[in-house]
Amino acid sequence: MELATIRTPDGATSAAIRSDQRWMPLAAANLSALLGRPDWSQQAVAALARPVKAGIPAGEVKLELPLPAPGKIICCGLNYADHILEMGRGLPNYPTLFAKFADTLTGPGEHINIPSRAQGAVDWEAELAVVVGAPLRQADDDEAREAIAGYTLANDISMRDWQNRTAQWLQGKAFDATTPIGPVLVTPDEFDSDEGIEINCQVNGALRQRGNTKNLVFAPAKLLAYISQFTTLRPGDIVLTGTPGGVGMGRRPPLYLADGDTVVIEATRLGRLENTIRFNNN
Amino acid sequence: MELATIRTPDGATSAAIRSDQRWMPLAAANLSALLGRPDWSQQAVAALARPVKAGIPAGEVKLELPLPAPGKIICCGLNYADHILEMGRGLPNYPTLFAKFADTLTGPGEHINIPSRAQGAVDWEAELAVVVGAPLRQADDDEAREAIAGYTLANDISMRDWQNRTAQWLQGKAFDATTPIGPVLVTPDEFDSDEGIEINCQVNGALRQRGNTKNLVFAPAKLLAYISQFTTLRPGDIVLTGTPGGVGMGRRPPLYLADGDTVVIEATRLGRLENTIRFNNN
Repeated sequence: MELATIRTPDGATSAAIRSDQRWMPLAAANLSALLGRPDWSQQAVAALARPVKAGIPAGEVKLELPLPAPGKIICCGLNYADHILEMGRGLPNYPTLFAKFADTLTGPGEHINIPSRAQGAVDWEAELAVVVGAPLRQADDDEAREAIAGYTLANDISMRDWQNRTAQWLQGKAFDATTPIGPVLVTPDEFDSDEGIEINCQVNGALRQRGNTKNLVFAPAKLLAYISQFTTLRPGDIVLTGTPGGVGMGRRPPLYLADGDTVVIEATRLGRLENTIRFNNN
Repeated sequence: MELATIRTPDGATSAAIRSDQRWMPLAAANLSALLGRPDWSQQAVAALARPVKAGIPAGEVKLELPLPAPGKIICCGLNYADHILEMGRGLPNYPTLFAKFADTLTGPGEHINIPSRAQGAVDWEAELAVVVGAPLRQADDDEAREAIAGYTLANDISMRDWQNRTAQWLQGKAFDATTPIGPVLVTPDEFDSDEGIEINCQVNGALRQRGNTKNLVFAPAKLLAYISQFTTLRPGDIVLTGTPGGVGMGRRPPLYLADGDTVVIEATRLGRLENTIRFNNN
């Protein structure tokens, strides 16, 4: 099952489910609202997908930020084993976690506007994002796996100069509207990160990152279970699972994004998340 | 002006303004809702304070978590100059910032329940909290100062073992319902942190921290202005300004909180924020 937040020809947004080449609008303004409904379930949504003729042709909709109002966004750093080992470090015992805000997100296809004070070290980070579908508190791995609503892509655009101003990364990771996610939410029956899914990042067509989810030290279910030991996860919350090797900061010399650069994140089954960098004068 | 979220004798919560020994309910369920109203202003609220006889005697209300639904909670570490210098470090050029969640907060008088897996290194942190009253984006210090809705107290209870598991502090700072704030929100006409306000922390009656806001490296307006360079602050958002010296982790040997300990944070004009630690078996 493939879900999205679409903008329909009449200008409104709607949660929607894909059926072949059509999007079937659902009774919620976006996927945050859909997952927030008490009657939300994959089965309930699947039942709505049958009357195919009521849908909107895929070519007539714009895919928007799928989850505009998550209660929590929690990100994991240093999670790809091959990248950690190649950097000469040992595998971590605990996930390195930090937060973003709902304001930090933006949608597929949107320009990523970088203010002048943050243009010096703009980096890409291809990530698998996990979306929570049921409340999780002190969960074990199996409970966490059952509570996954689906998967999408994320690009954890990072202002490395701001990130490294202090020991805590937040200020380099939370510029408004700089973390695109999308384009669609794929449910776990159609996507299993444990199988080993390639995720990659291209900048202006050049391959910069290539990782495989089988190398995640903390796989999605384990990560959600761990987080739920200290804070409750709720439907619509988003967990970013970390990025593989190949970021700009890791190159010698470092390579950062410039005005007009196009960044594409791709993964098997999850599609393509494309955004263009815009340097602003303000 | 002193504002609070009160629980009235009929069991409901309400935003309220204090007038002498009475609380006057306002047309919002709590201060998050009040500050979220487009017509919110200190003047508008002040106008409601006049019909004193309609109020509820202070002795008949319970003060609740004043701001249960902030969009953002941003915390500053390492912000008291005297404490930084005594630790042999230089003053920072940039504030060290991390986030908490609305779920992390709890109210005055509430027990702070610590699950068994996090009882090893529970520490106190007395802090001045600043509440945002108007949208702030790329603001300068003067604009930020004008946008302060008020001040309250916070106790940034920290699970040092979890905090120090990785380089990012979030997981030790974001256990659900472990950061009390309150008891009241005092507006800037009655509280000016630039004047030098003493803030202290007592554990079971023993003085553990004593700081003065004149030693803040990044004073409230400066901190809000800095944050607004990367993310928009909105009415009801909360910024914790850091803690002075005297935390348990800094003692030799370290001293941490135990089951039943009572922690009190006090500051001139802001009152007393008291909570008791409870160690759970789960």
